[in-house]
Amino acid sequence: MGSNITATQEKKINDFILAIRQVCGKKALSLHEPHFTGNEVNYLKDCIKSNYVSSIGDYVVKFERMLSEYTGAKNVIATINGTAALHLAIYCSGISTNDEILLPSLTFVGTANAIRYAGAIPHFCDVSKKDLNIDFELLDDYLRLNTESHSGFCTNKLTKRRIFGIIPVHLYGQPIHVNKLLRLASKYNLVIVEDAAESLGSFYNSQHTGTAGLAGCLSFNGNKIITTGGGGAILTNNNSFAKKVRHISTTSKVSHPYKLIHDELGYNYRMPNINAAVGCAQLETFEKIKKAKRGLHDRYQTVFESCPWLNLVKEQDYANSNYWLNTVVLNKKETFFYENLLERCKENDIFIRPSWEPLHTLKMFCQFPSSGMENMNSLNERIFNLPSSPFL
Amino acid sequence: MGSNITATQEKKINDFILAIRQVCGKKALSLHEPHFTGNEVNYLKDCIKSNYVSSIGDYVVKFERMLSEYTGAKNVIATINGTAALHLAIYCSGISTNDEILLPSLTFVGTANAIRYAGAIPHFCDVSKKDLNIDFELLDDYLRLNTESHSGFCTNKLTKRRIFGIIPVHLYGQPIHVNKLLRLASKYNLVIVEDAAESLGSFYNSQHTGTAGLAGCLSFNGNKIITTGGGGAILTNNNSFAKKVRHISTTSKVSHPYKLIHDELGYNYRMPNINAAVGCAQLETFEKIKKAKRGLHDRYQTVFESCPWLNLVKEQDYANSNYWLNTVVLNKKETFFYENLLERCKENDIFIRPSWEPLHTLKMFCQFPSSGMENMNSLNERIFNLPSSPFL
Repeated sequence: MGSNITATQEKKINDFILAIRQVCGKKALSLHEPHFTGNEVNYLKDCIKSNYVSSIGDYVVKFERMLSEYTGAKNVIATINGTAALHLAIYCSGISTNDEILLPSLTFVGTANAIRYAGAIPHFCDVSKKDLNIDFELLDDYLRLNTESHSGFCTNKLTKRRIFGIIPVHLYGQPIHVNKLLRLASKYNLVIVEDAAESLGSFYNSQHTGTAGLAGCLSFNGNKIITTGGGGAILTNNNSFAKKVRHISTTSKVSHPYKLIHDELGYNYRMPNINAAVGCAQLETFEKIKKAKRGLHDRYQTVFESCPWLNLVKEQDYANSNYWLNTVVLNKKETFFYENLLERCKENDIFIRPSWEPLHTLKMFCQFPSSGMENMNSLNERIFNLPSSPFL
Repeated sequence: MGSNITATQEKKINDFILAIRQVCGKKALSLHEPHFTGNEVNYLKDCIKSNYVSSIGDYVVKFERMLSEYTGAKNVIATINGTAALHLAIYCSGISTNDEILLPSLTFVGTANAIRYAGAIPHFCDVSKKDLNIDFELLDDYLRLNTESHSGFCTNKLTKRRIFGIIPVHLYGQPIHVNKLLRLASKYNLVIVEDAAESLGSFYNSQHTGTAGLAGCLSFNGNKIITTGGGGAILTNNNSFAKKVRHISTTSKVSHPYKLIHDELGYNYRMPNINAAVGCAQLETFEKIKKAKRGLHDRYQTVFESCPWLNLVKEQDYANSNYWLNTVVLNKKETFFYENLLERCKENDIFIRPSWEPLHTLKMFCQFPSSGMENMNSLNERIFNLPSSPFL
């Protein structure tokens, strides 16, 4: 891969690597590693000693309570991973088979997969060049032209299917503009499930991401700001929805003094106690982790002043970001050395990650509806995530 | 619950409780607790220290290798739970939407759920009074009368749907008669996915359960013979199937030097490293656990000689069982004191568990096809699982 480059480009690459080395030091750099400095081992020992390792256990209850206190969500249901949380939230949202759900084209594939698991159709939207999240102005224009209201529901003029909801993603930890989302959802009667997989610790003003709509979904995968090995959670302020989610996530088992009855199709989606134990310990040190990550971002901001040919994504006025993954966007005219930059970083033991292939172009999704993708197409091959471990 | 009982019945209940107390001692008895006597804590510590807690990690590789060595399966893919393993195995088996899959009516709901997740139709079969597994003679009679062969496929005469496969379950650890299964599957051209969730350590002659067909699925839920908190695994001797399962279970991510591409609908189903770490430690002590459980069964066998009104399920001639859950079947005429027996055991801090409600009667499944259920109906409210923890 890569191609011959000019001396000017060579200098840019060297400046980029130097900037990263100034921030992160000389060691080999991965994208994001967990940071265990608290009670992780103690709590794991306690699980083994108590014999409670599976999905019934005190750490699950405690982890959910801690998340509830931190995010302000009235109900929290811990799940086996973030994809399961999204699937469960969509499944329990009142959706019907073949309803469409709006989502950004720029997100991890799990967002769209979860829609498909629930029998629904992903409908891809363009993103903003500013924060890489759904561009709500563009989406409003698009929906005004391409949908109509039938019996109060938003209907796709072309496919005649109902557009049931929207899954905005707080990409790389950057909060969306929640008020714009709420106005749009209200105008088109859309149910909101937020993909907050990457945004634990990120706030819109003083509101935690994932708490604006029906549900928000977190992830605690190994590469997230805190981890439980594998894990996720649903946040919701809607009590009856929470009750339904709990029921479906525990194989829809009915409460009965002795009979083992299940009353609808259910899933085996609850987080095990040993994973929750790690989560509790991680949450206890969360403020320290977040502070370290915001500090890392500040240092990146300083050093990248020497690289005016790229833009480091920053939190918006209304946002307080967890800066899960520091992200740079190359200027439009720099796209041509994308592969060289990747290659040279790799040679220098610096793992930088390009953004995912836009979901609307993947072969299992390209037949589904999408809005215009001017920004997405323009951004493609210009976005990189930088090493962002909290201990850097 | 319960009703007035006669002095004779009262004596039977007392004999039953006395028998259990003779075997298990005076403590409060749960159904099945894990037994951690090995390297569990050491391996967990090692995970936390190494920062590898998620689904990429040495313990996942080691756990799969250990399972492969123990079961003889050429390929093992560790998953987040047994239901995910079943779903994945069915999903990758070549099945089409609305194909039917045969399964026993007497099993955990996960077996049927997994079929539904894959878009297929459960077709319920009657079980044998001898081992509580699918009765292959009855099933052969049923299929001969109710199916016909079209282009080599077995077709349900009534629904006109293809019967694609069969999921036999090694219930409570008791191995099915594998040769009978193979003959039947060959006769009707059925793909075999074994539900071996409960039968790690159980053999048909010298062949480990779960290795006779396309795939076998294990579970390591907290109540199983060994546990990983939550977890499962797919066993298969088919290399190309294993490759497909690995691909789909890791969100169908394509191998590429830097691009993040997914080429088909995938799942996030891999076991995290911390769960696998517990699994490795558990497997190291497995022979001890299995020996303890077989010893427990022998003691139950001795004491229940005083209760000729029930039958303790024993391994068949061809079987070596892990005796995951010791199981008794009340004689037909004893059904009437089912609730009293449950109630009195509960009062005595003895948890005995009745069998699941037959799946073909649950409201989300009762519209699906089923064979005659003479044995299943006769067995209902007569089956109990006894306390079976390995340390008893």
